Amino acid sequence: TGDMEEVVVLETNIDDMSPEIIGYMAERLLASGALDVFHTPIYMKKNRPAAMVTVLARKEDEQKLADIVLKESSTLGIRRSIVARYRMDREIINVNTNLGAVRVKVASKGNIKKIAPEYEDCKEIAIRAGLPLQEVLQMVLKKSKEQLV
Amino acid sequence: TGDMEEVVVLETNIDDMSPEIIGYMAERLLASGALDVFHTPIYMKKNRPAAMVTVLARKEDEQKLADIVLKESSTLGIRRSIVARYRMDREIINVNTNLGAVRVKVASKGNIKKIAPEYEDCKEIAIRAGLPLQEVLQMVLKKSKEQLV
Amino acid sequence: TGDMEEVVVLETNIDDMSPEIIGYMAERLLASGALDVFHTPIYMKKNRPAAMVTVLARKEDEQKLADIVLKESSTLGIRRSIVARYRMDREIINVNTNLGAVRVKVASKGNIKKIAPEYEDCKEIAIRAGLPLQEVLQMVLKKSKEQLV
Amino acid sequence: TGDMEEVVVLETNIDDMSPEIIGYMAERLLASGALDVFHTPIYMKKNRPAAMVTVLARKEDEQKLADIVLKESSTLGIRRSIVARYRMDREIINVNTNLGAVRVKVASKGNIKKIAPEYEDCKEIAIRAGLPLQEVLQMVLKKSKEQLV
Amino acid sequence: TGDMEEVVVLETNIDDMSPEIIGYMAERLLASGALDVFHTPIYMKKNRPAAMVTVLARKEDEQKLADIVLKESSTLGIRRSIVARYRMDREIINVNTNLGAVRVKVASKGNIKKIAPEYEDCKEIAIRAGLPLQEVLQMVLKKSKEQLV
Amino acid sequence: TGDMEEVVVLETNIDDMSPEIIGYMAERLLASGALDVFHTPIYMKKNRPAAMVTVLARKEDEQKLADIVLKESSTLGIRRSIVARYRMDREIINVNTNLGAVRVKVASKGNIKKIAPEYEDCKEIAIRAGLPLQEVLQMVLKKSKEQLV
Ligand code: NI
Ligand code: NI
Ligand code: NI
Ligand code: NI
Ligand code: NI
Ligand code: NI
Ligand code: NI
Ligand code: NI
Ligand code: NI
Ligand code: NI
Ligand code: NI
Ligand code: NI
Repeated sequence: TGDMEEVVVLETNIDDMSPEIIGYMAERLLASGALDVFHTPIYMKKNRPAAMVTVLARKEDEQKLADIVLKESSTLGIRRSIVARYRMDREIINVNTNLGAVRVKVASKGNIKKIAPEYEDCKEIAIRAGLPLQEVLQMVLKKSKEQLV
Repeated sequence: TGDMEEVVVLETNIDDMSPEIIGYMAERLLASGALDVFHTPIYMKKNRPAAMVTVLARKEDEQKLADIVLKESSTLGIRRSIVARYRMDREIINVNTNLGAVRVKVASKGNIKKIAPEYEDCKEIAIRAGLPLQEVLQMVLKKSKEQLV
Repeated sequence: TGDMEEVVVLETNIDDMSPEIIGYMAERLLASGALDVFHTPIYMKKNRPAAMVTVLARKEDEQKLADIVLKESSTLGIRRSIVARYRMDREIINVNTNLGAVRVKVASKGNIKKIAPEYEDCKEIAIRAGLPLQEVLQMVLKKSKEQLV
Repeated sequence: TGDMEEVVVLETNIDDMSPEIIGYMAERLLASGALDVFHTPIYMKKNRPAAMVTVLARKEDEQKLADIVLKESSTLGIRRSIVARYRMDREIINVNTNLGAVRVKVASKGNIKKIAPEYEDCKEIAIRAGLPLQEVLQMVLKKSKEQLV
Repeated sequence: TGDMEEVVVLETNIDDMSPEIIGYMAERLLASGALDVFHTPIYMKKNRPAAMVTVLARKEDEQKLADIVLKESSTLGIRRSIVARYRMDREIINVNTNLGAVRVKVASKGNIKKIAPEYEDCKEIAIRAGLPLQEVLQMVLKKSKEQLV
Repeated sequence: TGDMEEVVVLETNIDDMSPEIIGYMAERLLASGALDVFHTPIYMKKNRPAAMVTVLARKEDEQKLADIVLKESSTLGIRRSIVARYRMDREIINVNTNLGAVRVKVASKGNIKKIAPEYEDCKEIAIRAGLPLQEVLQMVLKKSKEQLV
């Protein structure tokens, strides 16, 4: 069932490094097991438009990911805290459509059920078929609902 | 007196849902007792300009509000933490002005005292009297200070 | 009277330079006659949280300011356009308060009149008198209105 | 057919006024015929996190809307330019659903056709029926496509 | 020499579409010849945290790129203007380093000269050699300067 | 060695006060011992583009800094939490260059070593010598590496 779990949150403010490296570091972190990486625009002293980088991590990956941040970025410090996370149960199903099979994430918790077509699969179909991605997403959603009922 | 209290902070990143629904969800949450709801622009992977939604809640409302987020949004997870809150004592007084009565929030802590005219009351006067809101706010502030001394 | 005037707008996107330099460049531009300099957080390709720097300039300063941007920043191109500007007439008056004289900007256009205490003067008073800046601004505003009537 | 049209763009930077008034001014502008009003977070000198307010207007409304900005805000200047606008033809149709009638915007240009359920109608249904707004939007979209074919 | 050139600026506000599609659309636009694509976080009416998408384009690509925006996004209108662009002359040179050859962009205008190592080449070296990207960029910069003198 | 330490995080949302005061308050906080102060653009209810102010503080400074926030700002509450911080060891060394001596921060943790020229020293040289700040930073970096080997 969808339980509470704990995740590590690593945060660091970057005000003296090129955004090129921030984009690169995010890729490295995701490739090394980060649950999520995102940036928030912040304003620091001396009129600097900076970025706060946030990394969500499993506890067992914390050390490895913190080391990547220290190695790749100019930061001298990383803030670290633990948060709980409400989490829906997830399952991947395969949905067949006229344009090919698509993986679809089905999440549930109590009587809430959500359906999310896999972005990469839909993107591939959109490019191959020359259709707007929006249309592909809606078509897959419709098929998924029919299949799940 | 203005004590420390504890509030629950719920955070979720939204990168696959229309902002229309984010605005709607914020209204639902405020109508259901959230202490505050706000959004922060963030950047997620695959060049997605997303939003982090933050909900501040009393502990007794946490479950109800988390359910609204899970029901209304596309998110599969909500981060949850507890923070302390420095809080000024608040009191609502009525201030009489030439343009009608206005509620004014008076907050105090130690020797700090703050006066904040109620936005909705001032807005109503501004529209009715055809005055700039700024002017109404300043007029009410002046009257409040005279009345409080 | 408050007429339309034309100003030059210079814009450049910075995604491969430290924010330290952006802050520095803004100072240089303001010291060299820019009417205004501001930054907007933007997201560029490859997951880069970047900054768009906007410079407002008089036509006669355009070349000098564009050269500063090209010299100080990593950019290879500056977008340039001309916009009209609605502009209120401005006048500086001196307002005497219990805490010293303060310059106050008085702007007018048709029957609209606005009063803005000079930030630097109020800041100095706030620090010297140990008062909240907000309180100083409000006190100066009140005195200005009395003096202007 | 979907032609090019011209719209006026008014922009002003606000760094010395409460965001309460910015929200209020946006409402006033929309109620007075603005095509759109939006805010962008910017950073101005002296470490001020400010807002740029942008108003899109028909030419015949420009003067009225510029006056509202000058009257309500602290700004001393408004930048003004004209831009062209690619515009899709729009038509409102009524779509009948199990949960009531919904207005749906149908836009077209060449062989591109788009369907957008009216937010306010869907919101009303979502609240009345106790359904997630997302679900209502998807249901209306599905009905619209069936009706339009 | 570094001349002024004209570029087309296309702008559209997106407040009723998933950020997934915004990221996808940016990729499509860049692959179809856009000079640049970037997003700015904006706040629209009804508390919607939205995105403004800006596309910079050569005049001959305008129609094709505008069509992609209309096809892929939910927008019903695209603002369009022409801006001039100060542009530095650019040249790509090859720089040999201990870790392999790297393309380096050399830009010049009057007596200003700038050196920018190609991100993709440096990224490849950083991953292959297990070095921080920052270190690789600095090493290539040093080599470039030596070679150029 | 670079140990974990604990820092206090104070956060407050400001939606009814001029950004002028936010900039001022940040200066006050830094002058009173805050480890860092930064602002994040957020969107609050009623279409208000607001700012979240974050203060990082040593535990012994918490009370003093919270009082400044309560005194200077319009806020009625401050969220407060404790986070751990990964911290690199830092040392200041002096580096001699053709353009004068520059302080350089050298940080280390395990086998990671980072070099950061002091911004204020480099800024002074850039202005005095009429060089781009970027160039000065790179020159100092090069000298620092030579001196440290
Ligand atoms: Ni996520
Ligand atoms: Ni997804
Ligand atoms: Ni609040
Ligand atoms: Ni309020
Ligand atoms: Ni300005
Ligand atoms: Ni000012
Ligand atoms: Ni809509
Ligand atoms: Ni719009
Ligand atoms: Ni660019
Ligand atoms: Ni580049
Ligand atoms: Ni910091
Ligand atoms: Ni620094």
